[in-house]
Order: sequence, then structure tokens, then C-alpha cells
Amino acid sequence: MQDVFLYEGERLDAVNEKINLIQKKDGLTFGTDAFLLASFIKPRKSGRALELGAGTGIISLLLAAKEKFSEIHALEVQEDFATLTARNVEINGLEDKIKISCLDVRELRASSFGEFDVVFSNPPYMTTDSGKRNESDYKYIARHEVCGGISDFAAAAYRALKHGGKFYVVWRPDRLCDLICALRDNRLEPKIMTFVCADEKSEPSMVLVSATKGGASGMTLTAPLILHASGDHSTLLPEAQRIYDTLSFD
Amino acid sequence: MQDVFLYEGERLDAVNEKINLIQKKDGLTFGTDAFLLASFIKPRKSGRALELGAGTGIISLLLAAKEKFSEIHALEVQEDFATLTARNVEINGLEDKIKISCLDVRELRASSFGEFDVVFSNPPYMTTDSGKRNESDYKYIARHEVCGGISDFAAAAYRALKHGGKFYVVWRPDRLCDLICALRDNRLEPKIMTFVCADEKSEPSMVLVSATKGGASGMTLTAPLILHASGDHSTLLPEAQRIYDTLSFD
Repeated sequence: MQDVFLYEGERLDAVNEKINLIQKKDGLTFGTDAFLLASFIKPRKSGRALELGAGTGIISLLLAAKEKFSEIHALEVQEDFATLTARNVEINGLEDKIKISCLDVRELRASSFGEFDVVFSNPPYMTTDSGKRNESDYKYIARHEVCGGISDFAAAAYRALKHGGKFYVVWRPDRLCDLICALRDNRLEPKIMTFVCADEKSEPSMVLVSATKGGASGMTLTAPLILHASGDHSTLLPEAQRIYDTLSFD
Repeated sequence: MQDVFLYEGERLDAVNEKINLIQKKDGLTFGTDAFLLASFIKPRKSGRALELGAGTGIISLLLAAKEKFSEIHALEVQEDFATLTARNVEINGLEDKIKISCLDVRELRASSFGEFDVVFSNPPYMTTDSGKRNESDYKYIARHEVCGGISDFAAAAYRALKHGGKFYVVWRPDRLCDLICALRDNRLEPKIMTFVCADEKSEPSMVLVSATKGGASGMTLTAPLILHASGDHSTLLPEAQRIYDTLSFD
């Protein structure tokens, strides 16, 4: 790979064989949620996809490297992170596949960038009255509903999607009802839901949802995805490892 | 126990050591859902509880025999089943604990029977446009939203509950969104949710929800309850057996 210039407070990580990622040491770093959402999203080779709240760009990068879509448009409200996403796209040579716009999802119009087949997001999942603002602003804004809450993200997805298009989102189980109501309020019908548990005895720590614009009521709740064996969180169970390796749930 | 007179088309089953149950051969017979809902409901020894849609009365009978409440009022819209519940209450000697009314939940007023600490229901879970009406009317009405849908049941629970009171319901995962939206629309906030899976590889077949009238947003999604080991559905796993034996999740 080409030389990568890092500013102070940045680090470079090899995400997998294809993707390297510049991250801010005081920003959110990528985790299981990004990997699982990227895996949960079904490919549409000739389709256009939109990411709401790209952060470092990790999910769009994974999808572009895997060629799940012909074109990805990534929105990020924090200018520092929109710039970082652009640099990450460049160091991975994916400029032809990923476009970036520094934009608040609440400002997105149906006509802004054309219609999309798929919208996806790892949105902020904490309300602004929860947690303490004692961390870096980067992390606070990425985690909290400062620049739009889940209702705003769902409304933006609705505006951007074609009829029948899909919105993929990763979310916290303790706020599941907020997500479901936000989706339904915006005529995005949850059709597939998968809970993720650290091990078989743990309560779910994450939920992955695929919702269809204008879809009929009725959903498939899959068997939960269990990441690790009880008592050994250092290695993934075979099914979870397969998902990581193939970036696909199928 | 006393002698029990059975009409044609009826059968008598020993549910557990305490409860015998007359059931209609062409009606819905009690199953795992009734047992698990009765177990999921937390006791409130001096509290009053209301059942919406009692069927044969199995859940109220289990709760009364276990003395989870001081008084239970059971509503059932089908007159044949309201009568059957009354007979089941009588053969089990629980007339002091359980009152029965033949009433459509949509007709229930806040003042009908006073305020309740707890409302519970195993409601019809199929829309009237699903399935075929080729079975007995008993089963059809018990399963389908003929005499009120989940929104009507949630609205009735809201009217009957004290502020802070709890509504317990067992439901189908594929209609989870309908349930959550019905609860929220009626200011019943889901606070505890448990999915039930036949085995660890199966998708959830049931969901148990506890919602609080006027509760704040935010929920505990527990680890799923797994009933059987894969490949052996004839015996319960120890945790599931303990729940059955104690009629309690704790």
C-alpha cells in the first residue's frame, strides 16, 4: 500500500486483508457493530447505497471492498470525520466507489443525491439526556442524538430510498422500541431482525434490523447470533467467524 | 378431587399437581405459551389482576393456585368458554380467588371492575386476513383478531391498570412490531422482553413482554429462554424445567 501520513492523535489499523483505516485515538474506533452491520447488508451489485453517519467510513469501506454495491454515498455531519473518511477512501484506492458529503441527515432531501436502493446506518444510540459529556466531543456526537435522533435517521432513510428499498441499521436492544416506532412512523417496515449475544448466557448486546420502505407488516426474527462460547470471549464461534471472514450472513 | 361431569366433546387433563382442566376437544388446548406467561408474571400477593381473554381459564388457574395475587378477574368473550372457565374454577375449588365475566375487551371500561395492579393476556395473535376459517369457530375466534386486535387488548389493559401497573403478554415474534406499537400507542412501555426458542439453533417462536403503564422508555432484553437441546425436544433443559416446576422466572 501507499505511504500514509498520520496527524498527531491518529493511528493506522489493518481492518482486514483489504482495508486499512486511519482512526482518531480520541474518537470512536470501529468494533463488532460495524463488522456485523456490513455483513448483515445483502449485496445489490448494481445498486446505489447511502450511509447515514459514516464516522471513519469503516462500513462503506468494507462494503465497497467487497463490491456489494456499484456506488456508495457516505454522509457524515462532523467535518473532521468527513475529511477522515475521504482520506480513508483514498488510502484504500476506493475513490471510484465511495462519495462523501459533510451533511446533517436532517438536511438530506429526497432530491439531494438521487434515489437509493439501500440505506444503512450505525446511528448514535444514546439520548442527549443520558451519559455524561465528559468525553471528547467526537465521541459524544458520534454516540448521542445531538445531530438528529433515530427518528431523524429513519426519516432521512425514507426520503432517500426507492419504494421497496431497504434500510439496514444496527441498534441497542434496550432502545428497541424507539427504533421500531421510528421505523414504522416513517413507513419503513422491519422485515428481518437478528439479535447478537456475546455468549449463549448473555442478554443481547446488539440488534440488526432490515426494514423495507412501504413493506407489509410481518417480520422474520432469526435465531440469535452467538459470538463466543461462555467463558472464552477471545475466540469467535465458527458461525460468527464465518460471518467475519465472508462479510455475509448467508 | 370431586367428580367431574364432562359434556360430549370435552376432555379432562391434569395440568400439574394442583390443577385439573376441562378442555374442548375442538377448542385450543393449553400449551407452552400459557405455562410460560404464568411463570413470567411476577407475584403481587395482595394485588388484583385481570386476564383479558381467558379461554379455558388455564393461566388464571395457575396463578391463583400459586397465590400470586389476592384476586383475579378473568374476561372471556365466548360464552361457551366463560362458562367453561367457571366450571374449571369450580372443580379446582378456586371460586374465592377467580371471578369470571363474559365480556368483549373492547367493552371494558376503566370503571367496570375497579383498578388493577396487573393485567395479563395470551391474546389472539393472527389478523383476520390470515389463515383459513376452516377450523372450529372456537379456535378461529381464540386465535384471530375477530373480537378485538392487539391494539384493543392494549387499550383495555391501559384502561384497567393503575398508573405504574404492569401488563404481561405472550406474543408471536413475527408480529413483534404490531405489539410494540400497540403498547406504546396506549402508553404501556415495554420494560422486560424475553424471547423463547425451541432450541439454540431455532428462531424464537414466542416473546414474553412486561409493559408498565406510564413507564419511561428503556427496556431490559433478557437472554433468550431455550427450551430444549438441539435434536432432543422431548425433554426440557434444566432452566426451562425449573421455570415449569416453580412457575417463576426468578
